[in-house]
Amino acid sequence: VSGISRRDFVGAASAVGAGAALACVRGVHPAVAPAVGGAGNVPNKATVLFQGDSITDAGRDRDTADANVAWALGLGYPLLVASGLLQAYPDRGLRILNRGISGNKVPDLEARWDKDTIALAPDVVSVLVGVNDYWHTRTHGYAGTAEDYERQYGALLDETRRRLPLVRLVVLEPFVLKTGNVDATWWPAFDARRAAAARVAERAGATYVTLQRELEAAANRGGGPAYWLVDGVHPTPAAHALIAERWRTVVGW
Amino acid sequence: VSGISRRDFVGAASAVGAGAALACVRGVHPAVAPAVGGAGNVPNKATVLFQGDSITDAGRDRDTADANVAWALGLGYPLLVASGLLQAYPDRGLRILNRGISGNKVPDLEARWDKDTIALAPDVVSVLVGVNDYWHTRTHGYAGTAEDYERQYGALLDETRRRLPLVRLVVLEPFVLKTGNVDATWWPAFDARRAAAARVAERAGATYVTLQRELEAAANRGGGPAYWLVDGVHPTPAAHALIAERWRTVVGW
Repeated sequence: VSGISRRDFVGAASAVGAGAALACVRGVHPAVAPAVGGAGNVPNKATVLFQGDSITDAGRDRDTADANVAWALGLGYPLLVASGLLQAYPDRGLRILNRGISGNKVPDLEARWDKDTIALAPDVVSVLVGVNDYWHTRTHGYAGTAEDYERQYGALLDETRRRLPLVRLVVLEPFVLKTGNVDATWWPAFDARRAAAARVAERAGATYVTLQRELEAAANRGGGPAYWLVDGVHPTPAAHALIAERWRTVVGW
Repeated sequence: VSGISRRDFVGAASAVGAGAALACVRGVHPAVAPAVGGAGNVPNKATVLFQGDSITDAGRDRDTADANVAWALGLGYPLLVASGLLQAYPDRGLRILNRGISGNKVPDLEARWDKDTIALAPDVVSVLVGVNDYWHTRTHGYAGTAEDYERQYGALLDETRRRLPLVRLVVLEPFVLKTGNVDATWWPAFDARRAAAARVAERAGATYVTLQRELEAAANRGGGPAYWLVDGVHPTPAAHALIAERWRTVVGW
């Protein structure tokens, strides 16, 4: 918690938040061709919410509720996606939020879903959750099975769809690489979670962003597993960039 | 200083640093085509150092000296450039560092240049400095003129070239937009600093990344000035993405 220096960086910018998001409604010209995706897919004034565990949290400042603020978005893929979208579509009035919390499993998301998701009235809900649903069975005495994960996750997305009928759901595939905290004994149990996430996404009509095979391919291409996932679980900046690129490609924005 | 939640995000990743940078030396396959630039331009094991003021600092954790670590890179364009380069060139063993400090003017960089630049033996030194060299004449009683800025900045780059003969220098154009702290009385004085930075870059044989006209064009295209520079000086995530994209395009990486 100590050590982050904000000083006048924060001081100068602390009045932004919703103000900056509102400012862009003034834009009158269509966005130029973006690096990824197409402007035609991006609705006006959409609120995009990133939900999940530490990978999404990525050190964000949980005391800042405003959209589009760097320190509230954290140091991971939500900031990278947000920076790119806000650059590409300045006339759209996008509001981008991160409510990921380290250590969360599906039941933890469920417990705070009303406050941290539904109440924010998002147009897009992007969820990455699952690694702790397995990991904590090894380290924290958590008793949830792959079936529990699938059922709970499915119910969470069903509830989201019921309460936000027009929401676009994005489900990110949980991933690990064999290094650090992750050894061969994670398989095949972890694969069962990945397969469950894919089924949950399909049943919920969610856009599914595969990541496991892409990260394996990246690690084979260069750097090895720890270059991409420090401890087998947590992405480095390189992997956050890969996740962000995958998000924009698959979502089509 | 309060409020950034790191928890297991940091805990899990704190052992990385140079280890992750070294890990990628193991890569054997050439990088696939990157989003920007060309792999042929990126040398092996290059150390890239970002220097400057709050725009570069961007809330980085100054207690972490390691390369390629998200919280040590901050929330701005250095993190965005680093994430993109580390994704694109996993076989290059790049080491990316940020030593920007909020509030710095050229004399402040000079005072810490030995320790924070020369001693790190960078292969690329990227500098963005100048807005405080003018701003602080208005707000802090600083007496430096445009001529002082040009002479001091030129001397700093000359010294860098002398002590690191093979270094590649990158100079980013200082920029402001008319909003927040920046009103019409900044002109023409601020233009004199921009013109000085361009001459300094040329004399030093530096790669010069123009940003003023690009940010003006972006603000006209959508969002208005405060969407890009919150207070006329400090970039939003959208503007950090623009700066990062410009950096990669002009540097050619």
